[in-house]
Amino acid sequence: MLSVEQQLRIIKRGVAEILPEPLLVEKLKRSVATGVPLKVKLGLDPTAPDIHLGHTVVLRKLKQFQDLGHQIIIIIGDFTGRIGDPSGKSETRKALTEEDVLKNAKTYEEQIFRVLDKEKTEVVFNSSWLAPLQFSDVVKLAAKYTVARMLERDDFSRRFKEGRPISVHEFFYPLMQGYDSVALKADIEFGGTDQKFNLLMGRHLQEEYGQEPQVAAMMPILEGLDGVNKMSKSLGNYIGINESPKEIYGKAMSVPDELMLRYYELVTDVELDELDQIRLGLENHTLHPRDLKMRLAHILVRLYHGSAAADEAQAEFIRVFQQRDLPTDIPEHGMARDSEPVWLPKLLVTLGLAASNSEARRAIVAGAVKINGDKFTDPDSQLVLTDDMIVQNGKRKYAKIKLQ
Amino acid sequence: MLSVEQQLRIIKRGVAEILPEPLLVEKLKRSVATGVPLKVKLGLDPTAPDIHLGHTVVLRKLKQFQDLGHQIIIIIGDFTGRIGDPSGKSETRKALTEEDVLKNAKTYEEQIFRVLDKEKTEVVFNSSWLAPLQFSDVVKLAAKYTVARMLERDDFSRRFKEGRPISVHEFFYPLMQGYDSVALKADIEFGGTDQKFNLLMGRHLQEEYGQEPQVAAMMPILEGLDGVNKMSKSLGNYIGINESPKEIYGKAMSVPDELMLRYYELVTDVELDELDQIRLGLENHTLHPRDLKMRLAHILVRLYHGSAAADEAQAEFIRVFQQRDLPTDIPEHGMARDSEPVWLPKLLVTLGLAASNSEARRAIVAGAVKINGDKFTDPDSQLVLTDDMIVQNGKRKYAKIKLQ
Repeated sequence: MLSVEQQLRIIKRGVAEILPEPLLVEKLKRSVATGVPLKVKLGLDPTAPDIHLGHTVVLRKLKQFQDLGHQIIIIIGDFTGRIGDPSGKSETRKALTEEDVLKNAKTYEEQIFRVLDKEKTEVVFNSSWLAPLQFSDVVKLAAKYTVARMLERDDFSRRFKEGRPISVHEFFYPLMQGYDSVALKADIEFGGTDQKFNLLMGRHLQEEYGQEPQVAAMMPILEGLDGVNKMSKSLGNYIGINESPKEIYGKAMSVPDELMLRYYELVTDVELDELDQIRLGLENHTLHPRDLKMRLAHILVRLYHGSAAADEAQAEFIRVFQQRDLPTDIPEHGMARDSEPVWLPKLLVTLGLAASNSEARRAIVAGAVKINGDKFTDPDSQLVLTDDMIVQNGKRKYAKIKLQ
Repeated sequence: MLSVEQQLRIIKRGVAEILPEPLLVEKLKRSVATGVPLKVKLGLDPTAPDIHLGHTVVLRKLKQFQDLGHQIIIIIGDFTGRIGDPSGKSETRKALTEEDVLKNAKTYEEQIFRVLDKEKTEVVFNSSWLAPLQFSDVVKLAAKYTVARMLERDDFSRRFKEGRPISVHEFFYPLMQGYDSVALKADIEFGGTDQKFNLLMGRHLQEEYGQEPQVAAMMPILEGLDGVNKMSKSLGNYIGINESPKEIYGKAMSVPDELMLRYYELVTDVELDELDQIRLGLENHTLHPRDLKMRLAHILVRLYHGSAAADEAQAEFIRVFQQRDLPTDIPEHGMARDSEPVWLPKLLVTLGLAASNSEARRAIVAGAVKINGDKFTDPDSQLVLTDDMIVQNGKRKYAKIKLQ
């Protein structure tokens, strides 16, 4: 087992907040002294069966704990899923059916083991201790928190002030999640920074039930490919770990330059020393952002599809883009999926690659226009559009068609 | 079975509010047409094992329904008692132990049958349907109401605004009470006017669970002997139905004149026509308030101890007060229980029966001073005070000593 200092260096990588840090140090010391691993808890609400890189931020952190010899416990919130976490939501969520929850949970389980070591991970369903609770137990649990403190939670507070309904049962969500920590006697609970209230509830309830409280550890929320919003499936700005090597590689190449280091830190297993070198290289321009991004893309494909797939995705990318001298940041242009064949000059104008039909015709005749790298010289060409079709006029004007 | 109109006349006697009255009429019509009695529910929280006249206001109303042929169902809130009704309270109530609740419930049961007909009354414990509820049932129940509407309740609203804590489990009380109506398929629920929120919750939940909602019927809150505050044991302004005939009679004689008619209406079984006569007699001064109060006192003793005891209490009262020519409204004067013997003239001054020691001495020597009806002529008398000791100076000045 590594020393407390060595462990802390790894644990603190990329972490947003640890509450309270001295207690973490104390627990680590005790663990080193006794050889008893810490119980590190993560609750997953089985509502989103497609895990993306945003989810892996905390999963990778757990993997680091696992490699340090600690006990990872994944709670599949099959019971809480029937309520739906109201965290950050502006409306009461629809309850999932038991069937949905179980199906999602199974898919979830398969995916988390692409990050975590299955042999060393304990997976539990919180229905196993929540479902048998009787009304009287629930009353005792609910007695341990006040309405006013519950309404201090950002999302509840906002909804309450704006007069939007909060159902009484939504108060159970944080109580249940907190009770999970009691049931497991967790030492540390991880979550995103948006989980702070729920993680602190765990501490509160553990104390109420006479246990040493857990450490609440929060990971940052990963921005998606748009560089602004939280990565999420519904916003379409995500890289799913179940996507194909080509998709992962291509999407990774569209990560904004300014987020690249953050992605290296939060969703790869690059060593800390290497991270420092990358940071330095970007600052003093000894490393080229595109090279670093290709390396990031390669790492991400390797993580979820292995080295061979990563090499292949990279080779394909180089073939399509670099050997054809294509830039990697071609603007995308949405087009109707069911449209008729399009007259090429008109297409160039629509895509903003030519100012007028006549300018477009001249460019075509001059041999400056390529479709997917193939030269088109007939100004009367009619084209059937395909998804990801790349249209080029000269060396600088590109557009990629996205069928919608 | 009486006609709907005849029933309504009896039912509406003394009632504060019926919500909604047309539904009550509809239910009564259906009952008359089918011969199926209405289910009339009253929930009792077994926290106050001594029933006083305040409680009998609603119990007498149920007795009237019972006499009309309807089915009375008394719910002993053994399960809700573990939370404690927060209605009108400014603080979270202490949960009762299961043992306390059961003991209180038994005492309660014995007492209600001094008003209701035991043979025709169904007594149920709400733990029988609430205790078996699982966490998931509780979640479903809580989903049927919002936090904001819960906080509209007067007492919650006040506590919330004043920053006094409301525990989350207190929200269960109205939900449980409402669920009782669902479990029983109640037609009418009775309660005090302070129960309005809980009674309407029953209507709401019955609709949510696909039932015809109950009628919420509210009885006024009976003022106690002080004529101002709600009758309650803790305020000491009550007449307990388990008190001795002498106590009930004596206390009834201290009911303020202006409340007498209200007491006749709410806590006796005097017929409606007779009530009208009493009202008229008081208005045109053809009936003397003291006679009416003695009759009230007699009726109350008769209700809880029978005619013989009522006659005896009345005779005793007449002997002590009227034959000694004592007024019935002697002002009481608190004195320390452990005091030394008191010099009689000083006592008269202290009680305000004489302006000075010398005036008091003259009155004593003149034979105007009586203690408990016995003349004291020695101005140097030393008296040991006793509780209820009546001190008299002449025909108009009286004081009753209350040891404290």
